[in-house]
Amino acid sequence: MLKLIKNISHKSGLSPGALVHIGEKKIEKVRIRLIDYDEQSFEEKDLENIQECFTCRDTQTVTWINIDGLHDIDIIADLGNNFGLHPLILEDILNTAQRPKMEDFENYLFTSLKMLTYNEREKQIQIEHVSIILGQNYVLSFQEGEGDVFEPVRERIRKSKVRIRRMGNDYLAYSLIDAVVDNYFLVIEKIGEQIEDMEDMLLSDPRSELLHDLHNIRRELIFLRKSILPLREIISYLERGESPLIQEKTYVFFKDLYDHTIQVMDTVESLRDMAASMQDVYLSSVSNRMNEVMKVLTIIATIFIPITFVAGIYGMNFELMPELSWPLCCSE
Amino acid sequence: MLKLIKNISHKSGLSPGALVHIGEKKIEKVRIRLIDYDEQSFEEKDLENIQECFTCRDTQTVTWINIDGLHDIDIIADLGNNFGLHPLILEDILNTAQRPKMEDFENYLFTSLKMLTYNEREKQIQIEHVSIILGQNYVLSFQEGEGDVFEPVRERIRKSKVRIRRMGNDYLAYSLIDAVVDNYFLVIEKIGEQIEDMEDMLLSDPRSELLHDLHNIRRELIFLRKSILPLREIISYLERGESPLIQEKTYVFFKDLYDHTIQVMDTVESLRDMAASMQDVYLSSVSNRMNEVMKVLTIIATIFIPITFVAGIYGMNFELMPELSWPLCCSE
Amino acid sequence: MLKLIKNISHKSGLSPGALVHIGEKKIEKVRIRLIDYDEQSFEEKDLENIQECFTCRDTQTVTWINIDGLHDIDIIADLGNNFGLHPLILEDILNTAQRPKMEDFENYLFTSLKMLTYNEREKQIQIEHVSIILGQNYVLSFQEGEGDVFEPVRERIRKSKVRIRRMGNDYLAYSLIDAVVDNYFLVIEKIGEQIEDMEDMLLSDPRSELLHDLHNIRRELIFLRKSILPLREIISYLERGESPLIQEKTYVFFKDLYDHTIQVMDTVESLRDMAASMQDVYLSSVSNRMNEVMKVLTIIATIFIPITFVAGIYGMNFELMPELSWPLCCSE
Amino acid sequence: MLKLIKNISHKSGLSPGALVHIGEKKIEKVRIRLIDYDEQSFEEKDLENIQECFTCRDTQTVTWINIDGLHDIDIIADLGNNFGLHPLILEDILNTAQRPKMEDFENYLFTSLKMLTYNEREKQIQIEHVSIILGQNYVLSFQEGEGDVFEPVRERIRKSKVRIRRMGNDYLAYSLIDAVVDNYFLVIEKIGEQIEDMEDMLLSDPRSELLHDLHNIRRELIFLRKSILPLREIISYLERGESPLIQEKTYVFFKDLYDHTIQVMDTVESLRDMAASMQDVYLSSVSNRMNEVMKVLTIIATIFIPITFVAGIYGMNFELMPELSWPLCCSE
Amino acid sequence: MLKLIKNISHKSGLSPGALVHIGEKKIEKVRIRLIDYDEQSFEEKDLENIQECFTCRDTQTVTWINIDGLHDIDIIADLGNNFGLHPLILEDILNTAQRPKMEDFENYLFTSLKMLTYNEREKQIQIEHVSIILGQNYVLSFQEGEGDVFEPVRERIRKSKVRIRRMGNDYLAYSLIDAVVDNYFLVIEKIGEQIEDMEDMLLSDPRSELLHDLHNIRRELIFLRKSILPLREIISYLERGESPLIQEKTYVFFKDLYDHTIQVMDTVESLRDMAASMQDVYLSSVSNRMNEVMKVLTIIATIFIPITFVAGIYGMNFELMPELSWPLCCSE
Repeated sequence: MLKLIKNISHKSGLSPGALVHIGEKKIEKVRIRLIDYDEQSFEEKDLENIQECFTCRDTQTVTWINIDGLHDIDIIADLGNNFGLHPLILEDILNTAQRPKMEDFENYLFTSLKMLTYNEREKQIQIEHVSIILGQNYVLSFQEGEGDVFEPVRERIRKSKVRIRRMGNDYLAYSLIDAVVDNYFLVIEKIGEQIEDMEDMLLSDPRSELLHDLHNIRRELIFLRKSILPLREIISYLERGESPLIQEKTYVFFKDLYDHTIQVMDTVESLRDMAASMQDVYLSSVSNRMNEVMKVLTIIATIFIPITFVAGIYGMNFELMPELSWPLCCSE
Repeated sequence: MLKLIKNISHKSGLSPGALVHIGEKKIEKVRIRLIDYDEQSFEEKDLENIQECFTCRDTQTVTWINIDGLHDIDIIADLGNNFGLHPLILEDILNTAQRPKMEDFENYLFTSLKMLTYNEREKQIQIEHVSIILGQNYVLSFQEGEGDVFEPVRERIRKSKVRIRRMGNDYLAYSLIDAVVDNYFLVIEKIGEQIEDMEDMLLSDPRSELLHDLHNIRRELIFLRKSILPLREIISYLERGESPLIQEKTYVFFKDLYDHTIQVMDTVESLRDMAASMQDVYLSSVSNRMNEVMKVLTIIATIFIPITFVAGIYGMNFELMPELSWPLCCSE
Repeated sequence: MLKLIKNISHKSGLSPGALVHIGEKKIEKVRIRLIDYDEQSFEEKDLENIQECFTCRDTQTVTWINIDGLHDIDIIADLGNNFGLHPLILEDILNTAQRPKMEDFENYLFTSLKMLTYNEREKQIQIEHVSIILGQNYVLSFQEGEGDVFEPVRERIRKSKVRIRRMGNDYLAYSLIDAVVDNYFLVIEKIGEQIEDMEDMLLSDPRSELLHDLHNIRRELIFLRKSILPLREIISYLERGESPLIQEKTYVFFKDLYDHTIQVMDTVESLRDMAASMQDVYLSSVSNRMNEVMKVLTIIATIFIPITFVAGIYGMNFELMPELSWPLCCSE
Repeated sequence: MLKLIKNISHKSGLSPGALVHIGEKKIEKVRIRLIDYDEQSFEEKDLENIQECFTCRDTQTVTWINIDGLHDIDIIADLGNNFGLHPLILEDILNTAQRPKMEDFENYLFTSLKMLTYNEREKQIQIEHVSIILGQNYVLSFQEGEGDVFEPVRERIRKSKVRIRRMGNDYLAYSLIDAVVDNYFLVIEKIGEQIEDMEDMLLSDPRSELLHDLHNIRRELIFLRKSILPLREIISYLERGESPLIQEKTYVFFKDLYDHTIQVMDTVESLRDMAASMQDVYLSSVSNRMNEVMKVLTIIATIFIPITFVAGIYGMNFELMPELSWPLCCSE
Repeated sequence: MLKLIKNISHKSGLSPGALVHIGEKKIEKVRIRLIDYDEQSFEEKDLENIQECFTCRDTQTVTWINIDGLHDIDIIADLGNNFGLHPLILEDILNTAQRPKMEDFENYLFTSLKMLTYNEREKQIQIEHVSIILGQNYVLSFQEGEGDVFEPVRERIRKSKVRIRRMGNDYLAYSLIDAVVDNYFLVIEKIGEQIEDMEDMLLSDPRSELLHDLHNIRRELIFLRKSILPLREIISYLERGESPLIQEKTYVFFKDLYDHTIQVMDTVESLRDMAASMQDVYLSSVSNRMNEVMKVLTIIATIFIPITFVAGIYGMNFELMPELSWPLCCSE
């Protein structure tokens, strides 16, 4: 969870809107990908230089510029100046510790999200800061590194005669956010499976490692909740159709997305309840096991301590213990 | 609980509105049942082919088409096209992991619910995804498999001169939702009985299996809560009469239904509180039992360890222990 | 708590508004009592037959018909038809598992409440379902059995020149609800006393029976909360004066009643907090007691086990243990 | 906490507005004090008879009548009749178990509060029911006994040329409520100190008395919360300036008072959190201590039980144990 | 946490608006610093005398007067009179126990905040009371002692051609509040690191000191929450632009600040959840460790107590124990 609060303080003391990249460098060279399409035409290319894309800004086609890598501040600043983005927005794009948020500047909408993946080996959620800007005819997206959940969206755009080619750039922005949210289900499933495994172990063999796993899961769920909760507000704003950048026919899709977000949150809450209940079960079963151990000890002690005393009695060296000379009842 | 999150991820990456059946196939062949009635006439038949029902759509009589089995996507798609349903709605009908929700598309209302039954042998709640669409003169209902809680509604329709024959299709939709909600009471009763049994055991014999049963119940209640909670919002919307598809005289029935939903939720919350309290009692009574065991051990040890030591003293082989040659006080 | 959910399921599958008595039969014969009064006149009689009261309906005097016993469905149905009550309301009157609720049908107001009494012997709250209908010039009240908290109200009506004779039937309805709520304080006091007793025991002698009593109290408080919480909403509605059946001069009384309801709820919450804190104390004091026991055991063992070993040493039969032939230091 | 629910039930069955003194008699004779002032004049006297003050009611000066002792119902009733107070208000003044509340009867405002003092010897909060009525030119205040927190207010009035003499009776009412709220800080400080002491003890010496003190503190905090929480709503109403009895220039003072109330509530909540955390620490440290004890026992047992067995071996009376005749290795 | 409630009671009984310094004297001599600037000019000096700054009040340039040290009441009173501040505001400036709050007096805005620093040696949060007043052309700031988080703001002002020189005094007030909030991230990071360290220890070596550290952290988080929570409301008010003192172009900065506040609060809540989960883990691991200890004891006892008894049997002095004369099986 501490991933979210690390390094934010590096910025303290700086002027608001000062551009500093907060986070680790996940990619060597910034990659700029341009996709430009409308119902008929389609163009996709990697740009060497950010200036190449500025011409696309004012065309009637939908322009999607995706930037992988946030460490080259100049590129972000150039882009920001050309597209007229507020310095505070550029700051938020670069700050990977930024909480998910949405801001509506009449001529463009800024949304920042967390892209989550589950690292099975370390049993940890990995996080990537994603920013999406929806403007007049363009969509800008910013990611920390390569590898994303947007590939299926690109696949769909490449086909002609699909819905995404007919709808505008608001539908593209929706598709990107939808791809991020859909991926949350994958992460939740992984955690759900882990909880299921732990439940089985809890009943059959409540070892002490389980305690750490349980704590780990609870921490991941706290972290998950913190990353996802702000989304509700964000998507609710988009769905209410308060921005002129979103067309009426796209509302129903945002509404559907809103439902998904609620479902994610509901599930996270249920998993938290589950984990808390499991913690209780664990504590009780440790006590139970101790009880079993103590019972064995007590039975042994209750039988043998008194008879050892009796044996001790007859081991005393008193000269006059008549019973010592008694013959064995059966040996005679 | 994990039932709810399994398999959702299969859809991730697909275009929104793509039709995929998520869930298990619970029935071999899709069954289509048509009931068409008004105050005077009544007709009930099983359809071989989904096209047969399309003619009924525009008649003035109330048409109820019920579909058991969601795995045949073509049937759903055909029906959807003919009745003008939005692709996102068809997606929700097929997605059995969908959270209960309600959507109002001016000319039809979509509601999805969870039909619950309690499997006594496995002590688990079984869930079935049910979707109900209320249109101009028709009601469509979709279920995962055969066997449902709608049979009493059908029985009532078959009789002539009953309220349901006089009221419109909005009353039919109400009756279906009401049948689902009424059934929740059955499930809650079963869980309530189980809790009552466990309470008795808790007081008389707090064994370790109880701990697992208790955890099981808590999990079922988390699951129940998640399935039922969204209903409140749904029925509240219907009851406020915001849709022109619901006649004013039906409001009072939806209001009554809303009260039932609240009662179900209240009871689930109370049962959760009960289960939490029982967990506390269990933990305390395990400690209590350990206390009893320890007391026995301590009493035995406190009596016998010191006197064993005394016996040991007189068992020492010192040559000069005058008391060893003392005659027994009473044997002389 | 399970009292509230028992038997509700008997109704599942029935048509809404179908009249079924849910609950146990607490009285042999239904008793119908009529009180008819205004500032000058007063009449009180037991009716043999429900039809006798129908004439009173349209007089200008305040008519109060009280029915003890809900198992005779015909009487309720007759009354309902004559006074124009909605079938769903009759259903709610008969359903003793119904959650407290209020419904406003322009020409009459329906309120259902829980009348609570505390059975000291069984340490359990007893519950009775009460329904009150406020119409144009009449008040109808329905109870499960004989014996109620309304006797003081009747006493006041019997006197002439008291406020209740001058005010209308809305004040009568208020008086009845007020009598029910006032009685809650009695129940809470009893539980409060029990908690106080348990607190003393907790500090002096935390036995294991206490644990069961504590769980019992928590269950009763969960139950109490569930019965009382809906009242807040109900009385808040009445106090806001949204129904024309309630005169402006009665508002201040409903407001006072609302305050009482809040006070009852506050106290129940405080008692719940108390009981939770006591549960914590209990668990800690069980651990404390075990600690004491363990300390005794450890002290005994730490003293005697080592010296028993020493005694054992000198009890060994080695031939060459010079110290065995040492004379006793003091006996020489 | 049970102080708040004791005796309320004595009233059950009585007519609403019936005047009964609920609570204990804390003073022998009712004391009536009159203070009458404006910017120039000032008069203060003890009245023998309640009728003496009625003339002051209609003067233009600010009249403050303070009544210590609530057991003489006639005085309250007389005053109520003369000042036109509603019977329900008189009932609330006499009912010391009444929850803090505020009621706005256009021509006067009724506020009831709890005056709290901390009894250090019994470590308990003492409570006194205070009612304040703000009318056209007068303020009435009612207390259970002598000794109050209003003395500093009186002191200020006695001086000439102070703000309180220039402002109207609404500022006087504010000053009285402010005096009550200011005193809450004293009570909270005492409890805070006690918690601080307990924290030190918890770390150094977690004895079992601490458990009882902790429970005691939690109970007092539950009680405190219940007494103070309703204040928020009350003062918020006054601060919003919805009553014409409060002048605009007094708003800022009520706003300041509102802030104080929030601060009190915040602190109570923080102390509750603290106490809950301490309870957890206590339970853990009891377990820790037991662990220490068990470790000592186990070490002793692990060392001595095996070697005692060995000593026992050589203490056996077998005739042929060659090692018994071995000479001591070192004695030779 | 008790830092916040100490000494408040010294004021109880005083007239509202009475000027008393509550808190400790952290600086010997009050220091008054004046910064006066606009886009072209810049002046910075330390004042000997508070009267020197009064002339600046009415100039068109932005005037920032910063006062370190609150114990000299005369200075505060003088300043208050000259700038027309309400006595209640002066009281709040002097009361270091004051909860963060904001008040809007049409011609000036008062905000009080807590400046937090983390003392690593004592593992405690240190708190300083800061008040900021935003007037027509001036900003006043009050601190308890020297050393603050405002130095970076001063640095920025000293440079020419920066945003802060172009924007008005509302942006200066924003910058000051922003500097305070930015610093919270530093404190949270420190606590986060400590929690991370404790987590590692919890898994490897759950000693009893950890328990106290854990309690300490929870107390600091309770304290932090109490200091920060009111900020949300304050900044939300400023961001909504309800005061004419804040220009429209500054809104976006306050909105950004609001997001930071939410992020701080979210993180504090997550850390609280973490600490609670760690407490659970600690309790379970103590039980686990005890279990290990008990198992060792039980194994030792189960093996040696029975065989010690057997050895005791053969140590008895019975004359007729045939097996005693048996030769050793192997020695022959």
